[in-house]
Amino acid sequence: MQHKPKALFFDVFGTLTDWHSSISQALSARLTPLYGALDYGAMATSWRGRYQPSMEPIRQGDRSFVPLDQLHEENLKHVILAHGLPDLDDNLCRELAMAWRYLTPWPDVVAGLDALRQSFLLAPVSNGNVALMVVLARHAGFHFDMILGAEMAQNYKPMPDVYLRSAALIGLLPEECMMVAAHNDDLQAASALGLKTAFFPRLREYGPNQQTDLCAQGNYDLVADDLLDLAQQLLV
Amino acid sequence: MQHKPKALFFDVFGTLTDWHSSISQALSARLTPLYGALDYGAMATSWRGRYQPSMEPIRQGDRSFVPLDQLHEENLKHVILAHGLPDLDDNLCRELAMAWRYLTPWPDVVAGLDALRQSFLLAPVSNGNVALMVVLARHAGFHFDMILGAEMAQNYKPMPDVYLRSAALIGLLPEECMMVAAHNDDLQAASALGLKTAFFPRLREYGPNQQTDLCAQGNYDLVADDLLDLAQQLLV
Repeated sequence: MQHKPKALFFDVFGTLTDWHSSISQALSARLTPLYGALDYGAMATSWRGRYQPSMEPIRQGDRSFVPLDQLHEENLKHVILAHGLPDLDDNLCRELAMAWRYLTPWPDVVAGLDALRQSFLLAPVSNGNVALMVVLARHAGFHFDMILGAEMAQNYKPMPDVYLRSAALIGLLPEECMMVAAHNDDLQAASALGLKTAFFPRLREYGPNQQTDLCAQGNYDLVADDLLDLAQQLLV
Repeated sequence: MQHKPKALFFDVFGTLTDWHSSISQALSARLTPLYGALDYGAMATSWRGRYQPSMEPIRQGDRSFVPLDQLHEENLKHVILAHGLPDLDDNLCRELAMAWRYLTPWPDVVAGLDALRQSFLLAPVSNGNVALMVVLARHAGFHFDMILGAEMAQNYKPMPDVYLRSAALIGLLPEECMMVAAHNDDLQAASALGLKTAFFPRLREYGPNQQTDLCAQGNYDLVADDLLDLAQQLLV
């Protein structure tokens, strides 16, 4: 890498946090008393499966921007019906959607961010809305300099304005920012806009049978094993 | 106070940082080699004196939003001419405008914020733009959860949308947020919108001959001596 970035932009769901375990547990804790022992891991996967499609009308301009909290609620209602359960009441649905604010970080993340914080500005560039991300950062112990991402651009990754607005708000050129993600589509979009890119895999993000994002599929500036390895490579 | 706030919103210039000393020193350091020993304290006061008037066309809708960095540059050019000095070149002007990113905090602030951080979400709600505030927070050792304020609303305090957009972005009702400032106009505007308010004076904000904001002029939820005293009152 010719010049080091000044800021690191992080994908959060999957890259920094283990949503599959956290959401499976949250569903199980709240729904087992109502419906017994179901496959809550599969339900978590279905819930996440509706994540990208639910953003598509907003990306296409067919729907005004709504924060991810709201998409999570709407998507859960569909998942509950698709799994043959009776309709959830709105309060329970809202309560379960808040589980996305209390995800567990992968074991390397807190130490990795703390190390990187010595030399770089750190910000999430996530599809999660600001209120979600503020609470999640507190819960998980992430010390960010600023919350950037989808809500700042009123659009969803991988649309260009999410990356470009994030860089502009923090006062940097795209090439002064590095997008860090475990997802190839995110990094390909960032790279096309001139941001630097770093990949490491999260082989269990989707649970035990993961098929996607098992390795880097792009010409990234850095490929690492995890965030601690990334820190070691960037801090030399 | 019936219910404690969940988030504390901070004014930054004057309330958390000593801009008068910092800016006087920055002007002196850079301009003394060019122009000799002038009254750089008076020049700092003049620069700040153009702060509110320069925002007014934006508040009135007569000018599109531009970040405070840009207003600082424009205002400095006027001040230089008003003090009878030759026009500054653009690069030097831009460099001096960056001095607002490196202000010294008042002595009680870092410890006060760290104490308050245990129980509250913390965010600046300043007229400073995001890039300015991110760098200032790093420089001064302020650990915020998020940068809110003018740029989020594309308008300047005390316009209502700056406070309301800040509360909405962090996912809280106005009454769940407390504006903390050493300026009565800021707190009166926040209070009128339903935010909680806390005042403490900064008797030397404008240097040795300060005439304004010497005491609380409003029915605020809290009045304190400084940020440490505020923390003590809020954390009981």
